[in-house]
Amino acid sequence: MLQTKINLKQIFAIALLLISFNSIAQPSKRDSYKSKAPKYIFYFIGDGMGLSQTNAAEAYLGSLENGNGIKKLQLSTLPNQGFYTTYALNRFITGSAAAGTALATGHKTTINTISMDAQRLQPLKTIAEMAKEKGYKVGIVSSVSIDHATPATFYAHQPTRNMYYKISLDLSKSDFNYFAGGGFKHPEGDGKTTEESSLSNFGMGATEDIEDKEPNSMKVAESRGYTFVNTVHDFKKLKKGDDKIIAIAPKLAAGSALPYSIDQKNGADISLADFTEKGIQLLDNSNGFFMMVEGGKIDWASHANDAASVIKEVLQFDKAVATAMEFYNKHPEETLILVCGDHETGGLALGFAGSHYDSSFNLLQYQNLSYEAFSDKLALYKQEHADNYSVADGLNMVKEHFGLGDASKGLQLSPFEMQQLKDAFDKSMTYADEMTKNDQFYLLYGSYDPFTVTACHILSHKAGIGWTSYSHTASPIPIRSIGTGASLFTGFFDNTDIPKNLMKLIENK
Amino acid sequence: MLQTKINLKQIFAIALLLISFNSIAQPSKRDSYKSKAPKYIFYFIGDGMGLSQTNAAEAYLGSLENGNGIKKLQLSTLPNQGFYTTYALNRFITGSAAAGTALATGHKTTINTISMDAQRLQPLKTIAEMAKEKGYKVGIVSSVSIDHATPATFYAHQPTRNMYYKISLDLSKSDFNYFAGGGFKHPEGDGKTTEESSLSNFGMGATEDIEDKEPNSMKVAESRGYTFVNTVHDFKKLKKGDDKIIAIAPKLAAGSALPYSIDQKNGADISLADFTEKGIQLLDNSNGFFMMVEGGKIDWASHANDAASVIKEVLQFDKAVATAMEFYNKHPEETLILVCGDHETGGLALGFAGSHYDSSFNLLQYQNLSYEAFSDKLALYKQEHADNYSVADGLNMVKEHFGLGDASKGLQLSPFEMQQLKDAFDKSMTYADEMTKNDQFYLLYGSYDPFTVTACHILSHKAGIGWTSYSHTASPIPIRSIGTGASLFTGFFDNTDIPKNLMKLIENK
Repeated sequence: MLQTKINLKQIFAIALLLISFNSIAQPSKRDSYKSKAPKYIFYFIGDGMGLSQTNAAEAYLGSLENGNGIKKLQLSTLPNQGFYTTYALNRFITGSAAAGTALATGHKTTINTISMDAQRLQPLKTIAEMAKEKGYKVGIVSSVSIDHATPATFYAHQPTRNMYYKISLDLSKSDFNYFAGGGFKHPEGDGKTTEESSLSNFGMGATEDIEDKEPNSMKVAESRGYTFVNTVHDFKKLKKGDDKIIAIAPKLAAGSALPYSIDQKNGADISLADFTEKGIQLLDNSNGFFMMVEGGKIDWASHANDAASVIKEVLQFDKAVATAMEFYNKHPEETLILVCGDHETGGLALGFAGSHYDSSFNLLQYQNLSYEAFSDKLALYKQEHADNYSVADGLNMVKEHFGLGDASKGLQLSPFEMQQLKDAFDKSMTYADEMTKNDQFYLLYGSYDPFTVTACHILSHKAGIGWTSYSHTASPIPIRSIGTGASLFTGFFDNTDIPKNLMKLIENK
Repeated sequence: MLQTKINLKQIFAIALLLISFNSIAQPSKRDSYKSKAPKYIFYFIGDGMGLSQTNAAEAYLGSLENGNGIKKLQLSTLPNQGFYTTYALNRFITGSAAAGTALATGHKTTINTISMDAQRLQPLKTIAEMAKEKGYKVGIVSSVSIDHATPATFYAHQPTRNMYYKISLDLSKSDFNYFAGGGFKHPEGDGKTTEESSLSNFGMGATEDIEDKEPNSMKVAESRGYTFVNTVHDFKKLKKGDDKIIAIAPKLAAGSALPYSIDQKNGADISLADFTEKGIQLLDNSNGFFMMVEGGKIDWASHANDAASVIKEVLQFDKAVATAMEFYNKHPEETLILVCGDHETGGLALGFAGSHYDSSFNLLQYQNLSYEAFSDKLALYKQEHADNYSVADGLNMVKEHFGLGDASKGLQLSPFEMQQLKDAFDKSMTYADEMTKNDQFYLLYGSYDPFTVTACHILSHKAGIGWTSYSHTASPIPIRSIGTGASLFTGFFDNTDIPKNLMKLIENK
């Protein structure tokens, strides 16, 4: 009997050893819920957000706080890290529609196609639709118009991204629970011009059903049970249980999008983080939710090579991630957060030929409005001074809004930079569309207002930031994740693998 | 007694359940050896290799094979993925010495410092030195001179990277078992000029002991028991058990480095992969080994914005990784492979303003020599045609070596590109150092031969590749890993965390 007792003790010791080895061998808590379907899923997509865009934001914060090093964003604290390729079926450098389709459906498709196959004949089921079927409440949030390419790929199926009207009809057909962000671009109908040319490029000719006489898509949404909310007052009143809400920012900028974060006024505006936080409140229920949140203007600001606006958009996007992290901390065993992007835009790099090995990201703090707001100011000036414009006025404007030429800020201009600004101002005052057909003109200014983009370039360069393009690039995109099933999103894979894995995770819900 | 037996069975059942739960909970084989010290450690460092450099190589292979998509490198198949910041103590955009020190010692230091503290007073212990103490055999391999900054940080402790002579003396003092790559840069002594100015910048004045009269550092190495091998014949004869070998490539290019891969002739040259494979053979022993392998010329080619040469260097580096993977497959439970970089160089992006959303990476195949070899040819031409040079000759040269202007290859030149080439050719023929002080000149050509760098730029641009700098950038660098302890190298961290984790892993060996 004594012998047996000793054996028992030994066996217990082995069992304990195994338990303790088990805890040691597990790399971290993050993998332990792998086989379960997450109850709450956050899918954050930074449009145009590559590794450089987040790095620029972290370097900017670091330079303000310490003069060197970085200050980590919330999204960088997510423990799992992966990377993926983004190419479209018919172009290596992708666009938001094809990239969104890949991220929403797990299928690569052709450029400009919204969650349909390459031939634009068959719809492709999206992860949001599948989540809806599985009983999750579904929310779609964006800082650009809610019928824009990226959000559209989660609920719409249309041959081209430019069919905003049809996309907005698909929106209300989805029966999803919460839409938030910018408004509908063309609730009255698209007209035919853009779509016709786009479709005929694809050998499909014009479609007949894009007609101005069709009903307003906002009215259609209301007839399908949706409520539009577009004041701060009404937005604040939204409460748990309110369903089928389309919340639109009260102050919309060009393209029916939220204003750039750098231009937003506290109080008067609803931010991406506000929309995300409200989404959590409205969608939270015993069957769980799926919410896609797009930071859409990181892309737009990157197209314009406007570093300061890019950084402010990334910081706003990161605030939205922070609201999800707060929720995660309350439900760590049931929540999955993914933070990724659809592609990089602009070829942004922290390093510019003219500044060699130096950088001064803190200089970006002196820009106090977006390239768009500055262009608007300049257009107004041009209108008022068609016959008597003066480069001195232009130089005063860039001093006021970019700090350029202000030695007290460390932003004195070199003779070369001064010449660049003067040349660009002349071009801005005499601008005509055909100029962009000139190779050298396009390299210098893209299709932007010459003076504005030159100011953005010079400030970028002085900060130590370079750009290679006004379009997208094919840089692999990082994905950060935490929570139930997050370990599926590590390593190097393809954008289509993300929804494939998500679908696997919720399949058995 | 029966009762006891049932209890025993129950306990065994619990134990078995725990064992099986343990296997289920483990996310993959890659984590299962975490607490053990790896017996074989490979530490691959691509100098100047950011995410873009490997992506460019994969896109190039993809475009040759399928016209779209990527073909994965060996290094991209490693299952663990992480990222890290690289900034130096006194500069956000780091250099190879400070970055190498971080990767070798786990400490940030000042620019140009070789494994010493920020004040350049105290040496910092390196992971290679620690491995040596723990009984590992140690190998240091590079495609540039073996006393260059990155390899030096693993065995030397010197105030500046330019003290090549002192570094080469430290090399033979290390007692490491295998050095391979390029030769010593200054075996006879450095002279004083560079070091004096560098040291006096740091307030240290000139040192007395850098004197031409000091003994040849190769002789010193021999007196310390090292054998130099510098022919293909002798290199091939090296066999398991041969110890204290310094293997130098037989054909050295400028800077005592291996020739660029794009310029290497099979048979006459020993490649980085050959040196790595030989290292495995010589170092393999019952106490294990640590081998650092640097792809040093990825950086150099990126400085020159020479995309084709960058890609060929990455492919060669990847071949070296493949030899390690072969070894890993034989010893999967005892091996750790890390593949990373010290910083990104050039701000390379797959996307250029002038080519919008298009890319044709396959066009890079028509470049048949490195920027360096082309510059050498042009210098020879200039020497021979000082008084009768002709732009037509220059255009013929870029047609022959870059394919530029050859419509049959899809490389016809636009009027703007033709003008860029003509302007650059004129500059090349009349080049003077002070020209680089002009801002615009530097932006166009850096400190490279104008015609050569313009040819590299135009071919890059036609392929769809843009560059922002002739220097380094601060992009976070990916680390890929597989094997014992690899899970420590996931997530987003700092370059100093890599050796810190390695040191933890081998501490209890």
